Amino acid sequence: MTSQLHKKGEAWSARFSEPVSELVKRYTASVFFDKRLALFDIEGSLAHADMLSAQGIISAQDLADIQRGMTQIRGEIERGELEWQLDLEDVHLNIEARLTALIGDAGKRLHTGRSRNDQVATDIRLWLRSEIDRIGHHLGDLRRALLDLADQHSATILPGFTHLQVAQPVTFGHHLLAYFEMFSRDAERMLDVRRRVNRLPLGAAALAGTSYPIDRERVAATLGFEEVCANSLDAVSDRDFAIEFTAAAALVMTHVSRFSEELVLWMSPRVGFIDLADRFCTGSSIMPQKKNPDVPELARGKTGRVNGHLIALLTLMKGQPLAYNKDNQEDKEPLFDTVDTVIDTLRIFADMVPGIKVRDANMRNAALQGFSTATDLADYLVKKGLPFRDAHEIVAHAVKICSDRDIDLADLSLAELQKFSPLVGEDVFDCLTLEGSVASRNHIGGTAPAQVQRAIAAARAKLAK
Amino acid sequence: MTSQLHKKGEAWSARFSEPVSELVKRYTASVFFDKRLALFDIEGSLAHADMLSAQGIISAQDLADIQRGMTQIRGEIERGELEWQLDLEDVHLNIEARLTALIGDAGKRLHTGRSRNDQVATDIRLWLRSEIDRIGHHLGDLRRALLDLADQHSATILPGFTHLQVAQPVTFGHHLLAYFEMFSRDAERMLDVRRRVNRLPLGAAALAGTSYPIDRERVAATLGFEEVCANSLDAVSDRDFAIEFTAAAALVMTHVSRFSEELVLWMSPRVGFIDLADRFCTGSSIMPQKKNPDVPELARGKTGRVNGHLIALLTLMKGQPLAYNKDNQEDKEPLFDTVDTVIDTLRIFADMVPGIKVRDANMRNAALQGFSTATDLADYLVKKGLPFRDAHEIVAHAVKICSDRDIDLADLSLAELQKFSPLVGEDVFDCLTLEGSVASRNHIGGTAPAQVQRAIAAARAKLAK
Amino acid sequence: MTSQLHKKGEAWSARFSEPVSELVKRYTASVFFDKRLALFDIEGSLAHADMLSAQGIISAQDLADIQRGMTQIRGEIERGELEWQLDLEDVHLNIEARLTALIGDAGKRLHTGRSRNDQVATDIRLWLRSEIDRIGHHLGDLRRALLDLADQHSATILPGFTHLQVAQPVTFGHHLLAYFEMFSRDAERMLDVRRRVNRLPLGAAALAGTSYPIDRERVAATLGFEEVCANSLDAVSDRDFAIEFTAAAALVMTHVSRFSEELVLWMSPRVGFIDLADRFCTGSSIMPQKKNPDVPELARGKTGRVNGHLIALLTLMKGQPLAYNKDNQEDKEPLFDTVDTVIDTLRIFADMVPGIKVRDANMRNAALQGFSTATDLADYLVKKGLPFRDAHEIVAHAVKICSDRDIDLADLSLAELQKFSPLVGEDVFDCLTLEGSVASRNHIGGTAPAQVQRAIAAARAKLAK
Amino acid sequence: MTSQLHKKGEAWSARFSEPVSELVKRYTASVFFDKRLALFDIEGSLAHADMLSAQGIISAQDLADIQRGMTQIRGEIERGELEWQLDLEDVHLNIEARLTALIGDAGKRLHTGRSRNDQVATDIRLWLRSEIDRIGHHLGDLRRALLDLADQHSATILPGFTHLQVAQPVTFGHHLLAYFEMFSRDAERMLDVRRRVNRLPLGAAALAGTSYPIDRERVAATLGFEEVCANSLDAVSDRDFAIEFTAAAALVMTHVSRFSEELVLWMSPRVGFIDLADRFCTGSSIMPQKKNPDVPELARGKTGRVNGHLIALLTLMKGQPLAYNKDNQEDKEPLFDTVDTVIDTLRIFADMVPGIKVRDANMRNAALQGFSTATDLADYLVKKGLPFRDAHEIVAHAVKICSDRDIDLADLSLAELQKFSPLVGEDVFDCLTLEGSVASRNHIGGTAPAQVQRAIAAARAKLAK
Repeated sequence: MTSQLHKKGEAWSARFSEPVSELVKRYTASVFFDKRLALFDIEGSLAHADMLSAQGIISAQDLADIQRGMTQIRGEIERGELEWQLDLEDVHLNIEARLTALIGDAGKRLHTGRSRNDQVATDIRLWLRSEIDRIGHHLGDLRRALLDLADQHSATILPGFTHLQVAQPVTFGHHLLAYFEMFSRDAERMLDVRRRVNRLPLGAAALAGTSYPIDRERVAATLGFEEVCANSLDAVSDRDFAIEFTAAAALVMTHVSRFSEELVLWMSPRVGFIDLADRFCTGSSIMPQKKNPDVPELARGKTGRVNGHLIALLTLMKGQPLAYNKDNQEDKEPLFDTVDTVIDTLRIFADMVPGIKVRDANMRNAALQGFSTATDLADYLVKKGLPFRDAHEIVAHAVKICSDRDIDLADLSLAELQKFSPLVGEDVFDCLTLEGSVASRNHIGGTAPAQVQRAIAAARAKLAK
Repeated sequence: MTSQLHKKGEAWSARFSEPVSELVKRYTASVFFDKRLALFDIEGSLAHADMLSAQGIISAQDLADIQRGMTQIRGEIERGELEWQLDLEDVHLNIEARLTALIGDAGKRLHTGRSRNDQVATDIRLWLRSEIDRIGHHLGDLRRALLDLADQHSATILPGFTHLQVAQPVTFGHHLLAYFEMFSRDAERMLDVRRRVNRLPLGAAALAGTSYPIDRERVAATLGFEEVCANSLDAVSDRDFAIEFTAAAALVMTHVSRFSEELVLWMSPRVGFIDLADRFCTGSSIMPQKKNPDVPELARGKTGRVNGHLIALLTLMKGQPLAYNKDNQEDKEPLFDTVDTVIDTLRIFADMVPGIKVRDANMRNAALQGFSTATDLADYLVKKGLPFRDAHEIVAHAVKICSDRDIDLADLSLAELQKFSPLVGEDVFDCLTLEGSVASRNHIGGTAPAQVQRAIAAARAKLAK
Repeated sequence: MTSQLHKKGEAWSARFSEPVSELVKRYTASVFFDKRLALFDIEGSLAHADMLSAQGIISAQDLADIQRGMTQIRGEIERGELEWQLDLEDVHLNIEARLTALIGDAGKRLHTGRSRNDQVATDIRLWLRSEIDRIGHHLGDLRRALLDLADQHSATILPGFTHLQVAQPVTFGHHLLAYFEMFSRDAERMLDVRRRVNRLPLGAAALAGTSYPIDRERVAATLGFEEVCANSLDAVSDRDFAIEFTAAAALVMTHVSRFSEELVLWMSPRVGFIDLADRFCTGSSIMPQKKNPDVPELARGKTGRVNGHLIALLTLMKGQPLAYNKDNQEDKEPLFDTVDTVIDTLRIFADMVPGIKVRDANMRNAALQGFSTATDLADYLVKKGLPFRDAHEIVAHAVKICSDRDIDLADLSLAELQKFSPLVGEDVFDCLTLEGSVASRNHIGGTAPAQVQRAIAAARAKLAK
Repeated sequence: MTSQLHKKGEAWSARFSEPVSELVKRYTASVFFDKRLALFDIEGSLAHADMLSAQGIISAQDLADIQRGMTQIRGEIERGELEWQLDLEDVHLNIEARLTALIGDAGKRLHTGRSRNDQVATDIRLWLRSEIDRIGHHLGDLRRALLDLADQHSATILPGFTHLQVAQPVTFGHHLLAYFEMFSRDAERMLDVRRRVNRLPLGAAALAGTSYPIDRERVAATLGFEEVCANSLDAVSDRDFAIEFTAAAALVMTHVSRFSEELVLWMSPRVGFIDLADRFCTGSSIMPQKKNPDVPELARGKTGRVNGHLIALLTLMKGQPLAYNKDNQEDKEPLFDTVDTVIDTLRIFADMVPGIKVRDANMRNAALQGFSTATDLADYLVKKGLPFRDAHEIVAHAVKICSDRDIDLADLSLAELQKFSPLVGEDVFDCLTLEGSVASRNHIGGTAPAQVQRAIAAARAKLAK
């Protein structure tokens, strides 16, 4: 093997009169993070070699040599034996150098008709596609865990809050299904992103395509890409898919942060709605009584991380002229960390949800305070013929008086209630109970236990598909 | 009409013992920006009233009154006659108060079975759906303008750059098609977002659904929504669609910023590849000779605005417990400004592209410098049998020598070229011409004029669908 | 007055062969937002004219004319009489055109030796300096309100939380002083920013300085600037001060968001530590019982807005070459909105804090639960001779047993306590009371009532300076 | 040594009935990144132990044991011998466990009167203070390099650009000094941040202070802190300093990105103003002629990274209630990476600047095009008595005519020039030369060579302080 791949420490190529400085080498090298792409790099190279051979650009023997060499390198990587060299800058040159060391000239022919620009774009798309599939899997697990817990609590009542003030009674199953919806949208979005990730840049070469008679559709088919990138300049410089993925990941983490906020709140002794299993909590180095919901807190904090990576990638691409610029090397670390953060978080939440211990009595007691059935009383009056706005005002009066006397609406006698409106009858007390209130919200999307069961069944069917 | 809607200046409702302060009223009111939703608010209310009547919750007479009242109010809004009142806080209460003033008790019945929480979520989705359609339209115009210009320049040669260094010759049509691809992905993404926007929250009421026998699917059908939001708690608090839209908009602006960067660069006298029509430029208050590409510069700057709005929305939703919190009112201004920015920018770019004057001679001269056909020479040697890595190294030597002598590769004699490799023959000069170089990249996505024409035809077919 | 300022609608100057299009005019004009700088523009122009005259560049008569004209224009602006014209693009050309209409040729001489590039940079610094001073004033008001409330509650005990779990008892005065510290740092930072804002760009002209014999130090002195910007290219393109200010503002809003989170939490019926005055709350259109803490929720949401503006400005400046580019026009709206958001929020919080009604009994009851004095028991054992880590472990055992029996540590008998450690004596019960616990933390920064009073006194002294 | 520190793998403390799961341990552990703080952790512990002993809280023998143990541990860390254990969660517990293993009970006494909450806050401030000092040092190196290059080029003329259009001639030294100003403001800001970093949280304990008679001012003095944090709740939860530092770092990188943009542009063959030394460039795997300015491109890309970290930290703190929450653990990685990015980038730029090869002839030729002295002609006419606005208009006419004829203003004959204005005399040609133009801008901040030399002298004096 000749010069270039060996001489990086001395000079990039014959074009250069002095070697890259050590500091520059470290600053510009990517091998210490992009080696994560190694197996995808090999997969892409094999598809490229297969096509080169099919098109007669390299010989069948070259192909066989490359396949044999790559098999060995894959093994070395999996066994942790390959020595990654800073001097060889990135994952691509490291693997190519090793290949050439193993198989000679055929290794030097592998790079025919491609460039590192289209090669790295291909690698990262192959890798991200596979990570999106893992995320889809973990989103499925978490959604199933939410459904199972919701199923157990389709009739457990707690106060629904708006503005953290008691609003109306809801069922805990219904509350959990709200998160099911969020994570389902995440799964949808991931599939949309996947379609745009799953396009082949290889063949764009450095930026303009290549003068070899390549067959990009064959490569796409080999690698399972749904489309071929239609413009070579765009293909090597496009990082839309990374931004779009990170935006979708930021939404996943936003949902996690909202759920975490509630878990932390519910576990606070002032609220006491749930308990997390001890194995998801930690203690304090100074306060012996502490049991802290570390996992949801940390997950909430990690939202910032992914929002930050999204901004990093958007800033990166802002104002970049065509085609490839070195700036783009900065796409990898934010993307890698986003994937790790999302997957670790989803896994741990899917584990944690089944271990949530629900304190039904505390939930019910809380729902009995704060006039949670005031809306039901107003609706009752409307059904008796009052316009809604007038009913609303009458109930507001009643609430004010109860609040001053520190009692609930249900504590008023019929006679007292009738002072507010002569329309009130004996049947008013049905609508003032928690069970009556939730059962009455019995339409698609409503909180009635029957609707929760219906929604769970529909969700299970959807997930099974 | 009774108290509540009039008394905001005095006290929110009977529940309150003192009125909201003036400062608080201004701080919390949204009417000065959310009045933009007025016509969608009316559309949503009419669909709701229609359903209430069909379900027997209000009378046919009530419905007729509401329809009559709303027709008048729509007219008043379109003619700018409706007086928006700060005391009535938001667009919803302003319209409802006006309706009740016009038609009496039927107006007070309109709010039966809904809340402002599901009402505003419905309004904003109706509005955004319509804006997404407008954006799709303008993206289409811009893409057509790019295709037309590309068509004129499918064989115009300029240097393709990587790292702003001359890389390989490309055709200007091919370069423009890279932007066609970007804006096409934007259009795709907008359609994906639209699906998730186009779901009906109405019927979620405050957070738990309602005790009235509503028919949400009827309302969805009336308003053209594809689905009904499946969980009431999620329906009133979900702002995913706003974030997802803004992320898609940030990508639109990122593409605009990249194109703008190139336009500014190309128009700089050091480059001189294009001229923008005077009507898109401005002068200087001090330097009489100046003609500045203000439009692309400003558009590039506006990227920041949309990135900022994306962060605003993500920050807004971080850690919000269910269900609705007042924080959510902050979703509107970033969203409104994002829509305005994207639409204004796309319109002006669709106008500006046809007025780009291409300076072909400057482009060609630039491509003749910087050894743009060096890769072609390497490929030539490979085709003669050399492994690619060796060919690369030989050409690097030749470039170094030419560079020191300040000449181009094509200026070397055959004898001189043969000193680098005995494989060089007479035919080498074909591959060193610009035309030969671009024509040879004749595969899907390549820069050859024939491929550019093929890509334009495919693009036109796609757009016509 | 001649051509240029009139002809914007037709053509920028003689250099242009076609007028700016209407769409472009609207897209690039800034007058509808930058008119906010009008009085500062006049102030800057007067200082410039004064210097031109002192240096003999314009005549004393010219100066007098300019002063007379500007006095009239200032009046017109203050009375809302000046008609701002889109055709005149920005606040500077609008005022200059009006001046020339009023006083003729002297008006045309005003722009001698300056450019709009240094003019707008000067205006925005003058404006921001004045807004920083207003913010400092409102930060002072809010800090005073916090001190007054802390003063009333230096001995009111509530549970201190970490991880929203009960940690140790603290005094409410101490808790409020934490926010005093945050807002004090904000005030410090604003003063640091002010120093860097308070430097004069005028004299940089378009980018290179001017050939007139100007006296920049005279202008700086007239306008109260502490320094003169030392490099003309930097002076016209620097927007560091805008970014630095917005970063400081983002910290103000971050503190507001943390305080808001606590206010919302404390007002939730599950916690019930405080009540906000009715005038800072609003009700619900559907739930008659609701009283929602809208102001802190909205303020929490507005954090996103300022974080977003910070990103907008950072994105704006990323990769901008020297010197002025039109992108910079995008600096104003984020800056204006940041100032408005911060000032409105601080004002309303300074108003709201004195109206906080503290529910001492609820606070005290909450502190009695959750083993808040467990650390005190561990410290007690350490003082009796046990290493801290061992004491910690013993108390953890005791807590576990109490927790299983659903009692507090103070409910254990001496005999029971002695089972955990023979070191326990009669005096143990002193350290298990809330009052004993807080009083014992009596060092700088500790929660003891005596320290709170000391801290308040120190804070008042600092504020009085 | 007892339980807690050993048993993490089994259960946090006696309070817990099941051990932390492996997944949770990995998710919540910080030791793999916070071990970076190890030497600062030891420094803080030694100052704490010294105070405990001076106050009689631990014995002199305990102190001596701790000092001996810590000396050994420091050595083990420096020699890479200490085995960091995931089971011990973080750097603090790892060091404490090792200490107790080495010295027994005295090790268990070290944590008396402190908590990990105030401990980690102290460590990170000590670490950041030292990194700020390193950054200050590298900012100094870079500024000196800029001054040296500016000194060599105080009279080298290139076109000054606004809007990337030729504006007026400037000197290259003057241009470089604009960056000197930016990096000087960065240094100022870092000093402001340092003041707020340099405050002692230790003594705040978990959140409320401690019941031991600690002496915080002694600890502050030992560690070189300028102040003691005045409120314990704030002390453990404050991360303002991290945000403020990262905002200052984002400005450093913004300046780097602007300089990089210009370096890339200047090195593009279309511009050709400079050449970077080969050791800061790399080549292409496919194009043998390429020499790419990788370092400035990558640095430009890294701007996104730091902007992202800023958002990560702001998002992290948004809406966090007092006092410490686990979210805060997420402060470290963004901060560490920000420091590394800024320091690596500044170092490499300080190295790269002296190797910039200036192509004076290309600069001069570029300044001769584009009517760079048009403003000088207008100023000439003003000095002859014309109002500035009229002079501006006359020169715009002249430029238009030259532009149509493709000549420069200096190519017009006196007679031709006089057609535009009878005020033109023989002396006009002086003001149309590049040297005349730059020399005339001879005031503070102007581009005249004399002013550049003056500014360099002033800058050197400032740096020497």
